[in-house]
Amino acid sequence: MIKNAVYAQSGGVTSVINASAYGVIKKCFSCGEIGKVYVGLNGINGIIGDDLADMDCEEPYEIDLLKTTPASAFGSCRRKLSESHEDEFKKIFEVFSKYNIGYFFYNGGNDSMDTANKIYNYSKKIGFELSVIGIPKTIDNDLYGTDHSPGYGSSAKYLATAILEASLDVKSMSADSTKVFILETMGRHAGWLAASASLARVNANYGPHIVLIPEVPFNREKFITKVDNTVRRTGYCSIVVAEGLNDEKGNLVAHFGATDSFGNKQLGGVGSTISSIISEELKLKVHTAVPDYLQRSGGHLSCYTDVNEAVLVGSMAVHYALQGKNGYMVSINRISDDPYYVTYDLVDLAEVANNTKTIPNDFITEDGMDVTTEFIKYAKPLIEGEYYPPILNGTPRYAKLRLIR
Amino acid sequence: MIKNAVYAQSGGVTSVINASAYGVIKKCFSCGEIGKVYVGLNGINGIIGDDLADMDCEEPYEIDLLKTTPASAFGSCRRKLSESHEDEFKKIFEVFSKYNIGYFFYNGGNDSMDTANKIYNYSKKIGFELSVIGIPKTIDNDLYGTDHSPGYGSSAKYLATAILEASLDVKSMSADSTKVFILETMGRHAGWLAASASLARVNANYGPHIVLIPEVPFNREKFITKVDNTVRRTGYCSIVVAEGLNDEKGNLVAHFGATDSFGNKQLGGVGSTISSIISEELKLKVHTAVPDYLQRSGGHLSCYTDVNEAVLVGSMAVHYALQGKNGYMVSINRISDDPYYVTYDLVDLAEVANNTKTIPNDFITEDGMDVTTEFIKYAKPLIEGEYYPPILNGTPRYAKLRLIR
Repeated sequence: MIKNAVYAQSGGVTSVINASAYGVIKKCFSCGEIGKVYVGLNGINGIIGDDLADMDCEEPYEIDLLKTTPASAFGSCRRKLSESHEDEFKKIFEVFSKYNIGYFFYNGGNDSMDTANKIYNYSKKIGFELSVIGIPKTIDNDLYGTDHSPGYGSSAKYLATAILEASLDVKSMSADSTKVFILETMGRHAGWLAASASLARVNANYGPHIVLIPEVPFNREKFITKVDNTVRRTGYCSIVVAEGLNDEKGNLVAHFGATDSFGNKQLGGVGSTISSIISEELKLKVHTAVPDYLQRSGGHLSCYTDVNEAVLVGSMAVHYALQGKNGYMVSINRISDDPYYVTYDLVDLAEVANNTKTIPNDFITEDGMDVTTEFIKYAKPLIEGEYYPPILNGTPRYAKLRLIR
Repeated sequence: MIKNAVYAQSGGVTSVINASAYGVIKKCFSCGEIGKVYVGLNGINGIIGDDLADMDCEEPYEIDLLKTTPASAFGSCRRKLSESHEDEFKKIFEVFSKYNIGYFFYNGGNDSMDTANKIYNYSKKIGFELSVIGIPKTIDNDLYGTDHSPGYGSSAKYLATAILEASLDVKSMSADSTKVFILETMGRHAGWLAASASLARVNANYGPHIVLIPEVPFNREKFITKVDNTVRRTGYCSIVVAEGLNDEKGNLVAHFGATDSFGNKQLGGVGSTISSIISEELKLKVHTAVPDYLQRSGGHLSCYTDVNEAVLVGSMAVHYALQGKNGYMVSINRISDDPYYVTYDLVDLAEVANNTKTIPNDFITEDGMDVTTEFIKYAKPLIEGEYYPPILNGTPRYAKLRLIR
């Protein structure tokens, strides 16, 4: 008997997670071996709560627009499953039974692969015939078992463009005003995003001059010396810092900083903390940008390579499920940097769930405050190509789904 | 005898100030009535310091790229002139004599028009034959005597796109995580930039739900009530706030907030201050973005209308100078909103220098926390059209000038 499929999105969103949804939906529609395609709204919450949307009810044009629509068109979640709450698993499999689900596709990062793995294990335990395939997604690029993660390329393109443009700006102002610019990026445990901003240097030489990542403890004295030398040499200094930067004792640098008017230590302010340090020590005028969500939902700056790969990891997930594969995440294998060429493969969900990929040492310069040409070789192809959304009235026209339950 | 021209850029930069440079340079080259075109490097500093670049030495392709290159390709400045320092004026006119300058074009905002006006007055005083024309530029849109200012449209397009994308993001996360997103914009005295983010609502209805501008004193209780109601109604709340927001006593809201680790009050943190207020009062998870320079140098998102008008105010400055006009700034007159149509005119430099244009009352809703459809009618045509820069290796290829002295 033909089975139906359910797909859901989980964790922090990206510019291209909906492109993976497009890949899943289109492949399910066209393969002839799957019945209906449901989407769980707000991730696993929608499956536990029997809150599913039927993709047959959407306009084909809006489904096409998923390729260029950032964030989560179906809602995401931060919910984690625990084996000690078996009632949640029971509810999930009740819903799977009710909708005759034979295929479960979960699109997310480490935590989401942990959820997928637990559902896979539970299906085995109760003997429920279900194919579980994870679809990788994270701007952090810290997923184990894949060369890189869809979502990273578009955020990298956003950040490289941002620091290129802001470096031109601070250079413009540096004669008699602002001399230092700081871009604070996401990245709590891995510095891939902060490092990606260095791709701004591929076409021009305006910065960034310093890249601070969580993999290397922050050394205040060496940092101040490098800022000072850079300003003396070039007239200005452009800096990228990851939110998860730690000091040599393992404390978040963001926590050095400010206390708010209610007496609480403020979080997420590493940019403002190092700005204070520079003002204090060097008496220079500093500007700081914190793009926050803008760096992960910047669909107007989506990368063609990233969109294309996001679509493919979605459609390959369906392809592998139809081959009978089960309990895996789709991974990307790099065959060649230049010309850039990748193939798709599978990695155990359990392995992905239990590992994090940080920046290897050969991608980091000796002083710990920049990336090497090896990193540039790795990251450069990931931001290639433009995939502009359609524009209406001067802003992007993103998908509008009906989400009929 | 044929005279030469000098052009310079001043004040905070924009995405399209170099498009005005393009307009000036091209018109000077083609008119047949002007000799050489020099550019003062780092604004008036370059003229005082005899630091001029000769535009004959630049590659035509790079001059063309000025149309899509953000920030100041020639360096800007914050320097103001004062009649009490006559030595500065003497130096300026020595340089004008040395280079046989008959035309001075100064591209900037209020302060820059004040500088241009003082140079105009000094030329009259000493009987130096000089035509002075100001070229408008400011993302703040607060210049008097012109319907709007080149630079505003591209920043408005950037901010509307940013809040559209971030609103999709917070909507995605709101089921069980972040429920409020705050975008802090520039704008110390006028709320035009913050208001422009409301253009995100033209195509979709995801936000912003609240727009806080310097023209309306911040009322903490009414604000919290509106955030609470919005989250109860739609599940999330998307907010735009101008850095110059004041409370009812005229104090900057940014100053309510944090003290840094050195005991200094931190500036520029209105986003973080209202984020603390929301966390405190409503116990909701909040994300805050501060795009800072990214909103004024986002050349990757330049607006066609804005680039086109920036080029034209530059070339019209030359046109008017050749007609013998002197002591004016080029202004834009709106003839019609839809279809959008403008003409160019002149306004006295002295008038521009001494006035600031804030948002009129009929553009602000009764509760003071949003803009009216009258504002949307005004601002919508200003973000129309895309003008993408050429892309190389995944990032914009901006102009590289030789700047031969």
